[in-house]
Amino acid sequence: MKAARYYGPGDVRVEQIPEPEPKRGQVKIKIAWNGICGTDLHAYLAPFIKFPTNTVPNEITGETLPVTLGHEFSGIIVGLGEGVDSEKHSIGQAVCVEPIFSCMKINTCAACRAGTRNLCNDVNVIGIGGFGGGLAEYIAVDENFVHTLPDNVSLEVGACIEPLAVAWYAVKRSSFKSGDKVLICGAGPIGIFLLKVLRSLDPTAVIVTCEPTVLRRSVSLEHGATIAVDPASTDVVSAVHAVTEGQGVDIAFDAAGVQESMNACLHSVKARGLIVNVASWEQIPKVDTNLMLLREITITASNTYTGIHPELLQAVGSGKLSGIESLVTSKVSLEDVVDKGIKSLLTEKDKNVKILIHP
Amino acid sequence: MKAARYYGPGDVRVEQIPEPEPKRGQVKIKIAWNGICGTDLHAYLAPFIKFPTNTVPNEITGETLPVTLGHEFSGIIVGLGEGVDSEKHSIGQAVCVEPIFSCMKINTCAACRAGTRNLCNDVNVIGIGGFGGGLAEYIAVDENFVHTLPDNVSLEVGACIEPLAVAWYAVKRSSFKSGDKVLICGAGPIGIFLLKVLRSLDPTAVIVTCEPTVLRRSVSLEHGATIAVDPASTDVVSAVHAVTEGQGVDIAFDAAGVQESMNACLHSVKARGLIVNVASWEQIPKVDTNLMLLREITITASNTYTGIHPELLQAVGSGKLSGIESLVTSKVSLEDVVDKGIKSLLTEKDKNVKILIHP
Ligand SMILES: [Zn+2]
Ligand SMILES: [Zn+2]
Repeated sequence: MKAARYYGPGDVRVEQIPEPEPKRGQVKIKIAWNGICGTDLHAYLAPFIKFPTNTVPNEITGETLPVTLGHEFSGIIVGLGEGVDSEKHSIGQAVCVEPIFSCMKINTCAACRAGTRNLCNDVNVIGIGGFGGGLAEYIAVDENFVHTLPDNVSLEVGACIEPLAVAWYAVKRSSFKSGDKVLICGAGPIGIFLLKVLRSLDPTAVIVTCEPTVLRRSVSLEHGATIAVDPASTDVVSAVHAVTEGQGVDIAFDAAGVQESMNACLHSVKARGLIVNVASWEQIPKVDTNLMLLREITITASNTYTGIHPELLQAVGSGKLSGIESLVTSKVSLEDVVDKGIKSLLTEKDKNVKILIHP
Repeated sequence: MKAARYYGPGDVRVEQIPEPEPKRGQVKIKIAWNGICGTDLHAYLAPFIKFPTNTVPNEITGETLPVTLGHEFSGIIVGLGEGVDSEKHSIGQAVCVEPIFSCMKINTCAACRAGTRNLCNDVNVIGIGGFGGGLAEYIAVDENFVHTLPDNVSLEVGACIEPLAVAWYAVKRSSFKSGDKVLICGAGPIGIFLLKVLRSLDPTAVIVTCEPTVLRRSVSLEHGATIAVDPASTDVVSAVHAVTEGQGVDIAFDAAGVQESMNACLHSVKARGLIVNVASWEQIPKVDTNLMLLREITITASNTYTGIHPELLQAVGSGKLSGIESLVTSKVSLEDVVDKGIKSLLTEKDKNVKILIHP
């Protein structure tokens, strides 16, 4: 079968590899769509810690480079390994995959024991640490990671469930309640999904997005942002205070991960406000701990997700998060994943929100 | 009467000023003891934002420099202004003073309206922003700021209630529960009071203090620290992991406010651990937001205190926080406040924990 394999920064090759067959407890999925993620882009530019190397295999998968890329995917079950629960999974089912795996050494790993696999020291992701990936024709995965899509949820939306889960979990970890005012820094897919989740919980709350690209600001407004501020031309903190009658916001989500977004969050939240970081940072920021002290500001972080796919899929199926399809700005074939996928997202930020690949 | 007046950095003069008389709603206190605080030291070294200047009066007090110093004090009521509640206050009562004042414009100030005076933009302190100070023979203060000392609480301990309130409130704002493991960075008065409050809540929990001076490490151990680590000679994070069986701590209090203490806190807390900052920072630190993300670490801050004096005084009166007297390492007369008080604390950290001044 065809697969996009990661050999290292700048080196992703679409090539033929053997088709995987489902082992005991696994299901085989014919992949329909796979979204390209910020992590894929990071790894294309520079070594990313969670990938194995040519010589050092991943602790859990035992694989070295190359690995198949892609962790945001949906597809159709085409094979069942021995022992798979036939009440849950059957041939022809439309599914998405929760790609996070961890050590599961529950005797020694407090995170895995506590059910917070996302906080395991060895946490990794299908499509990064190994176990195949979504940028391929087929994958075989542990049935426990496979979630059935509700009937009215398309395979395109199914491929967006993974990044949507990041946003859903971050909102859940925040103290957001109806009526809270919110700032979201960054309107890439995670920023916009944060907006959609928040908007589904409160149709009228003030939600400000802060984003430098024109397209993403306009998409933010289409998906319910109260205002969308260009940080290059507008003072974000003043804009936030103008739209909140000088009060500031209750919660600021940082989905940008730069010094400027940290500063904007710190100066935009009210006393006892909360900042929730969901970004990875290329540069470690300075954080004004004196301002935090004066206003008793809290900064927390939300790392991927754990245990929330069932409730998220139920919400998506119930129509509470409609319009996700419209965030897919481009559909590209697997052969073109580098030129029309990865490189397009790296260089033409203002033309894309989410790009889906079909094999 | 005699009073120690702050004219600016490096310039504190003991001089004669008129004795204050209690206005309506005020009580007049003959001051027994006043502790010297880190803020007093900061202001002796460099301009401190909360003091007025020679030309710009404080918004609330209307005073310019000089102001009488001192905000950690106890004394005896010697006069009652008109309208003072005689059921609460009477001549001869031993009292301490909660010195924080704020704008109290409850129509426009959300913090004052919400009962969080400590978060008011104009929050200030008696002995800094004006209204007299504890480094004087007498003071007249609003009766609402005056708390009666329980019978078995000495006037020396009464002068320690203010910094103890900082610690009490910080522990209250943390999620500390019995059995939690804790790191405290810095064993000055606030760090040691944090230790005492935590120890009063759990006699056996692992509590690590981290402090460079020999005296303060030894005082920490006397007051219940499980271990007291010298950050100059020992790797704090390794020491924390050794004493917590590799788990790390649930909560880290930063009462030091330097890059090294921030780093120690970040690397010492377990996944989903909490860092509570109580320090003022001379340098804004870098904060490893990627580490925070990986472990979903939360950083919050605790600013002075509000509304907790009654419960704190009850706890001290009940004997739950015994041994506070032993933290007073020196008693000095008002005439000697600069040489044997301020300068001694600045240059001989290893000889002092808390110095009390009597007028
Ligand atoms: Zn684990
Ligand atoms: Zn106020």
